[in-house]
Amino acid sequence: MKAIVVRPPQEGVEVRDVNLEEPNNGKILIRTKLSGMCGTDRGIVSGKLTFSRPPDGYDYLVLGHETLGEVVEGNEHFKPKDLVVPVVRRGCGTCLNCKMGRQDFCETGNFTEIGIRGAHGTMREEFLEDPRYLVRIPSVLRDVGVLLEPLSNVVKALNEMEAVQRRTWWSCDDSTYSCRTAVVLGSGPIGLLFSMALRNLGFEVIVANKRPPSPVEMEVVNGINASFVNTSEHKELKPDLLVDTSGHPSAFIPILPKVKKNGAVILFGTTGQENYGLTAEDVTTLVENNIIIFGSVNASKLDFEMGANLLVTLLGKYGELVNKLITKRVGVEEAPEVLRRKVPGEIKTVIEWK
Amino acid sequence: MKAIVVRPPQEGVEVRDVNLEEPNNGKILIRTKLSGMCGTDRGIVSGKLTFSRPPDGYDYLVLGHETLGEVVEGNEHFKPKDLVVPVVRRGCGTCLNCKMGRQDFCETGNFTEIGIRGAHGTMREEFLEDPRYLVRIPSVLRDVGVLLEPLSNVVKALNEMEAVQRRTWWSCDDSTYSCRTAVVLGSGPIGLLFSMALRNLGFEVIVANKRPPSPVEMEVVNGINASFVNTSEHKELKPDLLVDTSGHPSAFIPILPKVKKNGAVILFGTTGQENYGLTAEDVTTLVENNIIIFGSVNASKLDFEMGANLLVTLLGKYGELVNKLITKRVGVEEAPEVLRRKVPGEIKTVIEWK
Amino acid sequence: MKAIVVRPPQEGVEVRDVNLEEPNNGKILIRTKLSGMCGTDRGIVSGKLTFSRPPDGYDYLVLGHETLGEVVEGNEHFKPKDLVVPVVRRGCGTCLNCKMGRQDFCETGNFTEIGIRGAHGTMREEFLEDPRYLVRIPSVLRDVGVLLEPLSNVVKALNEMEAVQRRTWWSCDDSTYSCRTAVVLGSGPIGLLFSMALRNLGFEVIVANKRPPSPVEMEVVNGINASFVNTSEHKELKPDLLVDTSGHPSAFIPILPKVKKNGAVILFGTTGQENYGLTAEDVTTLVENNIIIFGSVNASKLDFEMGANLLVTLLGKYGELVNKLITKRVGVEEAPEVLRRKVPGEIKTVIEWK
Amino acid sequence: MKAIVVRPPQEGVEVRDVNLEEPNNGKILIRTKLSGMCGTDRGIVSGKLTFSRPPDGYDYLVLGHETLGEVVEGNEHFKPKDLVVPVVRRGCGTCLNCKMGRQDFCETGNFTEIGIRGAHGTMREEFLEDPRYLVRIPSVLRDVGVLLEPLSNVVKALNEMEAVQRRTWWSCDDSTYSCRTAVVLGSGPIGLLFSMALRNLGFEVIVANKRPPSPVEMEVVNGINASFVNTSEHKELKPDLLVDTSGHPSAFIPILPKVKKNGAVILFGTTGQENYGLTAEDVTTLVENNIIIFGSVNASKLDFEMGANLLVTLLGKYGELVNKLITKRVGVEEAPEVLRRKVPGEIKTVIEWK
Repeated sequence: MKAIVVRPPQEGVEVRDVNLEEPNNGKILIRTKLSGMCGTDRGIVSGKLTFSRPPDGYDYLVLGHETLGEVVEGNEHFKPKDLVVPVVRRGCGTCLNCKMGRQDFCETGNFTEIGIRGAHGTMREEFLEDPRYLVRIPSVLRDVGVLLEPLSNVVKALNEMEAVQRRTWWSCDDSTYSCRTAVVLGSGPIGLLFSMALRNLGFEVIVANKRPPSPVEMEVVNGINASFVNTSEHKELKPDLLVDTSGHPSAFIPILPKVKKNGAVILFGTTGQENYGLTAEDVTTLVENNIIIFGSVNASKLDFEMGANLLVTLLGKYGELVNKLITKRVGVEEAPEVLRRKVPGEIKTVIEWK
Repeated sequence: MKAIVVRPPQEGVEVRDVNLEEPNNGKILIRTKLSGMCGTDRGIVSGKLTFSRPPDGYDYLVLGHETLGEVVEGNEHFKPKDLVVPVVRRGCGTCLNCKMGRQDFCETGNFTEIGIRGAHGTMREEFLEDPRYLVRIPSVLRDVGVLLEPLSNVVKALNEMEAVQRRTWWSCDDSTYSCRTAVVLGSGPIGLLFSMALRNLGFEVIVANKRPPSPVEMEVVNGINASFVNTSEHKELKPDLLVDTSGHPSAFIPILPKVKKNGAVILFGTTGQENYGLTAEDVTTLVENNIIIFGSVNASKLDFEMGANLLVTLLGKYGELVNKLITKRVGVEEAPEVLRRKVPGEIKTVIEWK
Repeated sequence: MKAIVVRPPQEGVEVRDVNLEEPNNGKILIRTKLSGMCGTDRGIVSGKLTFSRPPDGYDYLVLGHETLGEVVEGNEHFKPKDLVVPVVRRGCGTCLNCKMGRQDFCETGNFTEIGIRGAHGTMREEFLEDPRYLVRIPSVLRDVGVLLEPLSNVVKALNEMEAVQRRTWWSCDDSTYSCRTAVVLGSGPIGLLFSMALRNLGFEVIVANKRPPSPVEMEVVNGINASFVNTSEHKELKPDLLVDTSGHPSAFIPILPKVKKNGAVILFGTTGQENYGLTAEDVTTLVENNIIIFGSVNASKLDFEMGANLLVTLLGKYGELVNKLITKRVGVEEAPEVLRRKVPGEIKTVIEWK
Repeated sequence: MKAIVVRPPQEGVEVRDVNLEEPNNGKILIRTKLSGMCGTDRGIVSGKLTFSRPPDGYDYLVLGHETLGEVVEGNEHFKPKDLVVPVVRRGCGTCLNCKMGRQDFCETGNFTEIGIRGAHGTMREEFLEDPRYLVRIPSVLRDVGVLLEPLSNVVKALNEMEAVQRRTWWSCDDSTYSCRTAVVLGSGPIGLLFSMALRNLGFEVIVANKRPPSPVEMEVVNGINASFVNTSEHKELKPDLLVDTSGHPSAFIPILPKVKKNGAVILFGTTGQENYGLTAEDVTTLVENNIIIFGSVNASKLDFEMGANLLVTLLGKYGELVNKLITKRVGVEEAPEVLRRKVPGEIKTVIEWK
């Protein structure tokens, strides 16, 4: 069958025929419907993500970890035509967190990730999957379920935010988050999904970027009753919650001393390339203000399940706006080109499999 | 009565007679037995702590927030001769955290702190105190109870550490912390109290400083079965928990990327004066490893009460070692001199009131 | 305007014209669209709910606490045509939980509840409401938003269940609840909403009643992939989570010793009238199995907001099934009759206001 | 060597010579110093505890699970003369809680417990123990460390109480528990240890029994500033926290409706033999008041470690009072008699091994 194939750590990507001969012991056969592309995919294609590697015994890797699939042959729990999304990371099997199904907190680092490290991804016509790693999603998500994988990472980060903020009482005096302002740095797919999820939790949301918004970004931001700030013009951000999706220390370090008392900072971005100084005065402010900062990566199966619920909520609340996050749909043959070069105005580009 | 007086933001300190004429509505009269000195006191004396200020209506401030007192005239709950320690911060009265008695998480900043900002401290022969702010401690703490105030801040930070780490399972597979290593940067009183408290929780502990240990430091470190690392010679620290008591970005930032997966970093120090760069690669590591970093300041009354229990435990376990943290006892007349200049080899210097 | 009026503790209910002359300081004018009826309303009408009372200065009480309204005159946050649902309980203003917006945990008991105790309800054509007590809901909930109030109580109970079960690791080894079975005693509106919410969290769900299901009940139970057990025929229930919506000790006490280790029991029902024995052997089983049992009442504003999100999710997943919970819609004039006597086959009866 | 031996489920107990021939792979050789006796031991001796059983391959069981031992031959972590206490329960090895070292929450029931079910206890001159199950305690606990095992169960229950009460804000408005009253039903060793631990957390404590206190009980209750209530004379108990150590439904069920709003009930006792009715009105009160009730059994290794710290605190605060909980010390030859029949006025009877 056709698959989109890379050879990390070498640069490059191609469509080719593969025959994976996977063992089918209790697995579910799934037809790929949509595949999302993200910065990680492009990092692998460019040869820059040095941790990417083929599965043992292979000299190539099938790309793809953002997936919407349809069951072809199921079992008692999965029926043909069920829509499914596979989780990305598979645990090491030895550390406690992996034994608990929290491979997103794997302590050994000996996990695999489909389409990224040590396991084939889903940018192929069909794949077999262990039901343990499959999340069924409702049919109403047929068009946008491919967004579940990135959204699951947002859900994990926000669940963790709520968990760590239980260190004190951080809700408002009406029990909600209505008095809290979140600033989201970056207006890519992750930034916009964070913004939607935070609006849904009741936060005021400011999306910030160092450039003006694109028309689609503006439409989404307005549609969810958030606001957009161009940080090259406006600097006075005083968030209760700061979410960095950029990975650039220069984007978030200057805002750290302005985060309000007891506030939180989520570090999510990993793509930056620079160095920015933290002063002792900044440190004093972090201490005096009880600021908490945490990096968040990956998601558990529960985060996928709750993410699917959230996606249904967003679709019910915002309708077409959710679909607009998918700015382009390409065929398989066009995929290598858009994997090499971001589409102008892109939020999320997806591959349609026939 | 005699008191140790400062005039922030001016430099200087003196012993003088004061007559405070405080209203005694239900307050407890307390005789000061011991006063501890810390970096904050010296910062005020040097004129560098710009947030320090006298109470409204005064042009001077009685210094002192580390206290061991003895009740002179009590009430139904406090009897004469009871040993007591006052909490330092008094809430703003308006934010939710202050209403909950968690003024250490005050959101408005409109709190006062005795001996520091807006309220007279306890470096005086006697003081009146609202019982709400008083913690009674057992008589076995007669000699070392003056350490409770700094210890309470350690207790708050470690309680918060345990709270935030509930985001996942971070204990070892025998339910304890026996598999976790804490690195404590700094071997001053706070560093050693953190080390003792962490040993008591079951952590392996490494005390790190950029110089060799003093004999007393070495005795304490050995006595609690911890180890000492001179970071000017040895750099390879891979902690699960990193506690910075230095406030120097250059001390802790280089260790951040080496903190183990799911690890935590407590920022406690506020005295540094420098700038150190955080790279985008560091940020990626924080994200990929789910690292959490938080600043911690002050303590609740509960932290004082649990700190008193902890101090009794430490005394029972380590005996004389706890007393050795008090490296010098001076009379009131000598106090200004040691408040201006740290005593060589000092861990904690205290003032004995007659 | 027309209102449905009771005179607790007297029996009886009538439609009459009222003129409440409420002060409008910053309040929102709302037109009532739908009012739900529940056991509490019928308890008041029957004169059996002895805690029900009119507001101060009134000798009657406008009934109604399950509401869907539409804004007539709003403010900067609420626009005309916005759909809104008011929360029911309003805090005492003095206890900490009420100050935190958690009036559902009020410690003094000095709260009021609209349509129940000390405050007029919403079974009237229009009402003025403080925005602090109003939850805006998305327009997609136009037909079923009247279910939000009962659902909010379910959300509170399940949030609390998740909170208390953090005492240990209770999720399955894939991080979800897929290995957990919930038994819900009672198939009324609360029982079915619990069942839907629990399916949505990933639990296996068994709805139990001591009679066969009605056709609508069966349709809902099948539609959410739950199962129904007639407990008069089948007794062997071994839940991980037991939810009692009946209030009958004879319904849940016999199941207590069968709840699985580390399991939880939610007591939600308050309408029973009997006595059932707990044996010392039962107590031993509760101890040996670490069973947790808790009563849950009311909901916070956050529970309403999250309940609105959940209702959108349920509507997206189950579509028409949610509407089927509303088994009858009556006009205002018919309301007194159905408030006196339950409609056969009723799940939820609602009043349509013109 | 000499051991105290039972043959469950048969009645009876004897001192005899045993030769266990245990494999010594990495185990620590320990000399037993003191063994505590409790209701479980007497239940086994009387033949009433039907779950008690010898280890596989044996027709007898060495009794004993409350232990203070001294290391004879150690390893790098345990030195000769170190005082140690073994944990009681050893996990099933298969469920998640056991993998996490939380065998006190074992889900399969396939655990063993030394001296109780499936594993020899420590009422013998010496035993070999896997270091994983050993807790070292400070030398200051030489006389009272035998109380650690019962105390560890108290620590587990109170930790769990604090965990589940995080469902809302239950501390007082000064952050402590000073406004909370705990009623402890039963004044045996467990009742008094709960009382001491709760005083140490800052609760007001009322010890209740249906008879007048013994002189030692009165001394302990007075010494910790608690009070004693004879429930046969005085019934009006309104606790925030109710701890039942009796196992009698008739002791705690009548108090359930009087537990204050948001209060908690710990069920710890397992020895009662009766039946007492719970009314629907009681259930309504539990619901309306958000009452939480949980059974608590056993303890994790962390609970033992924190229990050792607590015991040092209690010894430092209360001195001789802790020792007074040990009301009698007997030699090995006398042990069978006191295992058959409780000593009048007994709180805790211990066996001294030479």
